[in-house]
Amino acid sequence: MPYELWYWPTIQGRGEFVRLALEAAGIEYEDCARTRGADAMMADMAARAGNGRGPFAPPYLALDGHAVAQVANILQFLGQQHDLGPSNLADRYWLAQLQLTIADVVAEVHNVHHPVAMMDYYDDQKPEAARAAAQFRDERLPKFLTHFEAAARQGPAEWLVDHRWTYGDTSLFQLVEGLRYMFPRRMKTLEADCPALLRLHAAVGGLPGVRAYLKSDRRLPFNTDGIFRHYPELDGE
Amino acid sequence: MPYELWYWPTIQGRGEFVRLALEAAGIEYEDCARTRGADAMMADMAARAGNGRGPFAPPYLALDGHAVAQVANILQFLGQQHDLGPSNLADRYWLAQLQLTIADVVAEVHNVHHPVAMMDYYDDQKPEAARAAAQFRDERLPKFLTHFEAAARQGPAEWLVDHRWTYGDTSLFQLVEGLRYMFPRRMKTLEADCPALLRLHAAVGGLPGVRAYLKSDRRLPFNTDGIFRHYPELDGE
Repeated sequence: MPYELWYWPTIQGRGEFVRLALEAAGIEYEDCARTRGADAMMADMAARAGNGRGPFAPPYLALDGHAVAQVANILQFLGQQHDLGPSNLADRYWLAQLQLTIADVVAEVHNVHHPVAMMDYYDDQKPEAARAAAQFRDERLPKFLTHFEAAARQGPAEWLVDHRWTYGDTSLFQLVEGLRYMFPRRMKTLEADCPALLRLHAAVGGLPGVRAYLKSDRRLPFNTDGIFRHYPELDGE
Repeated sequence: MPYELWYWPTIQGRGEFVRLALEAAGIEYEDCARTRGADAMMADMAARAGNGRGPFAPPYLALDGHAVAQVANILQFLGQQHDLGPSNLADRYWLAQLQLTIADVVAEVHNVHHPVAMMDYYDDQKPEAARAAAQFRDERLPKFLTHFEAAARQGPAEWLVDHRWTYGDTSLFQLVEGLRYMFPRRMKTLEADCPALLRLHAAVGGLPGVRAYLKSDRRLPFNTDGIFRHYPELDGE
């Protein structure tokens, strides 16, 4: 039986980190809200909330009535069940730590276009977003990229751990993709200092499962409803 | 050899979730930045960054040259090494998921007082913070508390899983403590609908290790340098 993946059907968003790992590994899944609709997801979440252990928000991965939510947690689960993570204890905790730092970037990225009112529209908070974007671009983004570049550089090959890809690699790939879409000008400047990260990005893009996925219509295009949003006024060199 | 815990020495902040679990379990640790100073922490972090696997930010827990960062990851590590988490697979992933949802609340709470410029002062973003606080109080906080109340209600006793405390319980205790400090008026209203969460909170507060800790000078008071900050103008019924 394939996994059920539940996530918003029209955006990459946080769900994309899970989709990519599944696709790279060739694990069968149904992207349920895309096949059955967002209303079906709302109904599924409401039903799961009944036992007090439901997800707070999508994405979540379900199998046999059991559901796992929170991206870093889902990836750790897939890592252990399908050998997409390292086996050694120190590597496992380090990779989980890195994934959580990626989650922190994603939260900060979302905050850039929704700084004061997460539930309202970007249009209702444009001056505040401009201010948040400036600090993110100038201070936070270089700091995060320096951290991930060092992580990419310490492996013995193009991957984070050993000589094979793990979910941390597919997640860094997606992070670079998202940041390039959202901040093309700023990333052009900063990428000059990230050769190892770009090598890792290229290696993930070359994985057969990822290559096939990116060409398929299963890969949604980036858009301004997702987490990474391209608003030219928020970018800068 | 005791663990080395590294976190900002003058605030509860994110480090408090780790301190509480260590104290509740009676695990020996040195709160290193409190004994050796914040400069020593900066030097320690810089040294650890050298191998490309250092923490992005405190808190982190170190032993024998190995360091684990990110609160949810540290707690999962302690859970596995010291039996502070459930052993069964479904419970383990669910507890990790809940801890990550607590981390989401903490990030949103920080965003309330620093909506547009994480690296600047609250005084530089007061009108924006007022707007962020209103939405957090009115929309996000009730949604989170409803979620945690359901989690607290599903256990067979006062704890989240089975008949003993886990790191998820100490974390929910700290979340309630922080929210009460930051939003006393709003919490007074919302707590009326959270009897199971309050029962769990009382049970954690009654654990001998926690009781001793809270009375000691190891427990820092809440203040307006931490994550949970009491600014009366950001509270409301």
